[in-house]
Amino acid sequence: MMDNFDNIELQNKLERVINLLRKYRLVEGLVQMQDSPRQELIESVTQKQNLASLQKLIDTLHPADIAYILESLPLEDRLFLWKFVKVENDGEVLLEVSDAVRETLIADMGSNELVAAAEQLDADEIADIAPNLPDDVIEDVYRALPQEEREQLRAAMSYPEDSVGALMDFDIITIREDVRLEVVLRYLRFLGELPDHTDQLFVVDRNELLQGVLMLNQLLVNDPETMVSNVMTKEGVKFHPHDNAQQATQAFERYDLVSASVVDADGKLLGRVTVNAVIDFIRNKAESEARNLAGLSEQEDLFAPIWKSVRNRWAWLAINLVTAFIASRVIGLFEDSIEKLVALAALMPIVAGVGGNSGNQTITMIVRALALGQVSTENTVKLITKEIGVSLVNGFLWGGIVGLFTFLIYQNASLGLVMALAMILNLLLAALVGVIIPLTRKKLGRDPAIGSSVLITAVTDSGGFFIFLGLATLLLL
Amino acid sequence: MMDNFDNIELQNKLERVINLLRKYRLVEGLVQMQDSPRQELIESVTQKQNLASLQKLIDTLHPADIAYILESLPLEDRLFLWKFVKVENDGEVLLEVSDAVRETLIADMGSNELVAAAEQLDADEIADIAPNLPDDVIEDVYRALPQEEREQLRAAMSYPEDSVGALMDFDIITIREDVRLEVVLRYLRFLGELPDHTDQLFVVDRNELLQGVLMLNQLLVNDPETMVSNVMTKEGVKFHPHDNAQQATQAFERYDLVSASVVDADGKLLGRVTVNAVIDFIRNKAESEARNLAGLSEQEDLFAPIWKSVRNRWAWLAINLVTAFIASRVIGLFEDSIEKLVALAALMPIVAGVGGNSGNQTITMIVRALALGQVSTENTVKLITKEIGVSLVNGFLWGGIVGLFTFLIYQNASLGLVMALAMILNLLLAALVGVIIPLTRKKLGRDPAIGSSVLITAVTDSGGFFIFLGLATLLLL
Repeated sequence: MMDNFDNIELQNKLERVINLLRKYRLVEGLVQMQDSPRQELIESVTQKQNLASLQKLIDTLHPADIAYILESLPLEDRLFLWKFVKVENDGEVLLEVSDAVRETLIADMGSNELVAAAEQLDADEIADIAPNLPDDVIEDVYRALPQEEREQLRAAMSYPEDSVGALMDFDIITIREDVRLEVVLRYLRFLGELPDHTDQLFVVDRNELLQGVLMLNQLLVNDPETMVSNVMTKEGVKFHPHDNAQQATQAFERYDLVSASVVDADGKLLGRVTVNAVIDFIRNKAESEARNLAGLSEQEDLFAPIWKSVRNRWAWLAINLVTAFIASRVIGLFEDSIEKLVALAALMPIVAGVGGNSGNQTITMIVRALALGQVSTENTVKLITKEIGVSLVNGFLWGGIVGLFTFLIYQNASLGLVMALAMILNLLLAALVGVIIPLTRKKLGRDPAIGSSVLITAVTDSGGFFIFLGLATLLLL
Repeated sequence: MMDNFDNIELQNKLERVINLLRKYRLVEGLVQMQDSPRQELIESVTQKQNLASLQKLIDTLHPADIAYILESLPLEDRLFLWKFVKVENDGEVLLEVSDAVRETLIADMGSNELVAAAEQLDADEIADIAPNLPDDVIEDVYRALPQEEREQLRAAMSYPEDSVGALMDFDIITIREDVRLEVVLRYLRFLGELPDHTDQLFVVDRNELLQGVLMLNQLLVNDPETMVSNVMTKEGVKFHPHDNAQQATQAFERYDLVSASVVDADGKLLGRVTVNAVIDFIRNKAESEARNLAGLSEQEDLFAPIWKSVRNRWAWLAINLVTAFIASRVIGLFEDSIEKLVALAALMPIVAGVGGNSGNQTITMIVRALALGQVSTENTVKLITKEIGVSLVNGFLWGGIVGLFTFLIYQNASLGLVMALAMILNLLLAALVGVIIPLTRKKLGRDPAIGSSVLITAVTDSGGFFIFLGLATLLLL
């Protein structure tokens, strides 16, 4: 048994790889600096030892661990190490690494190597890495596949990214309902191996229509003389390939599933979804939401070249710049007022900042409720009322405090009053828009999470400046 | 088989519950308005029908679906519906709902009800809801448990929230290695039921020391005459209860596990972790990170009373207010400059805003790399160099554009130059601090994700104002 099996262990492996790489590079450097042939000989022996240790270490690693180490290394070291990975592991490693890192590895491989790597994978797995593969490689792989897997590959590549079809695999064992468990047990022994995550066998009729599932648990605890039809589960979770993937993963969470069947419109069994595909989906979704909040377009290789990182980040920076320019022009409208009372310039970011923070709180609440399907037409009004209530309480509370401080600093009671009033109004605006933006995006069929944060900040910035400077102009000047 | 099994279906159930509730309330209102006893009689018949339909609907629902519906209802309806849930489902539902909603349900229950609900749960599940239960209820439950489960409950409650111990359950089937598979198969039939997520049996010696695991797959495909010792897996993932839960979930992802054993320091089997606990953990972690970014302290009941929501949100608003005040005082330092050149007031939020956006991009990258353990002392310098490079490219690019626009709007070349220079410097500051903040928090043993976003924004706001206004004062006035 592996002991202390965790990331710390994995980080040790990474450190060991890095140490071996460093040793190797160090000696390489020495060889290049010196001319003595004798010295060179000694070094080359050391080098061979270094490389042998590296090879030995890599050979013991799980493909997922190799993927982790490759992702953690700068490009040069990554490609150097990649050559040490056994050919039969190439496919699995390509499957495990992030899209960005996969691109760097594939760019370093020849067509033949790529075809060999892809051929080790199942049809659904090939479909996962296909977007990164050159067209000629895909064609070669496709031609080498047996008929059945060709169709699976074609099917798997045809489903949109956020559909159940994209999560589906074809590792299913089917049985008939009119046999005894004894027969099933013998059949499994005949197969000699079960696919990973097999917690149930699929019961189909002669037309491959799904009749139910036989849980392995039931197979194990019942008398072998029992008929499959007597112990199979007829009520169970089944998906269609075009169902929404996120909703499918929520069903996995709610009902604690390990696998679930996927059927077509006629009820014909197409494949299954397993919990490991679900976990990957949840993880990717969470990461893409975090990236989206921060304004990163896609997953970024930690050691991407600078120009690639710039490209990954420029879109959101550009949007941000545009909204900042708009806010700036709003301020520009009131330059006369600021010239007369320069304190306005120092105070206005407070109104905008707290409004943005509060709006983001509201939007996060609503986006989560929408993702869980908890917002009905019934309770929308209740939600808006609540958020407005919260914003009013916050407005009077924080507006009061800020107004008081303003009065103390500037010894100007009306300025304090304007500040308090602007805070209340901007928090109110933040609450309203914080509910309306995600609901509207949802209604338009868009993902309510994407860009909501940028939008609300744009509104609370420009709105906050306008409210505060406008009030000041009206009431103070 | 349930067809169309997804959230849409679930939302239909929710709508049906809401419709029945509305019908009921409508009639209730009519009864209160009218005095005629005959009318009342008719209404009461209708009411009975309504309630019967409601009861029937609830009875068909999975506890997880009931939990979902309860979370989606305003407090009054939620508590009304809660009474219709069968006593034997109470425990499961309490386990499924969010902390905030659980509190509202528990507040509505008597001690006896709570004890009855808790007693339906396993020890590890009781530990999960224990923080929300009154002390006397926990004591009663504890006393009613058999000796073995008492110890399990005590153990489960003793582990910190982020440890493997908190994810662990005790539903393990143990076998000996010196028996034939035939004996194991008979033993399972004798048990009559296997715990959910049983994909392996745990092989222990007479001292309960873990010797290996027997995968159900192996049990099924091998000859029943084979000895357990010949087909069991000795190398496998095992955790200690005090291991970091997040690292354990990453191992589940990497190695596609369904369950894994938990052993103490001596190698004695304590329990197991299953993939459903892992999914819940990943989900909760992702949600708490999203909340943290938005400045929500904890999970909020969608229909929480206003004062409760205010409490949930005030801490981050207060922090935000303090940082906004500091930024405001930085501007205050330069009031003389702004008075002389009021365009500065309109331009300064651009410098601050784009810097904050860029800093958040950097921080998100680094936090993710830290969570995956990809940042070693080796590559820190490389990371900083890369981020500085990206920020310089972005700085010259966006700084140039902004500088040009500034020149065009204000017809002032020096102002455009100051603007460009300030953008470059603030983006540089954002990159530096964006790497340093999470790395420092990690080094101090804190969660690098928490509060990083607020901190970077504080730095790029105050820093941006200072850089821009300072440069303007030096170069323009």
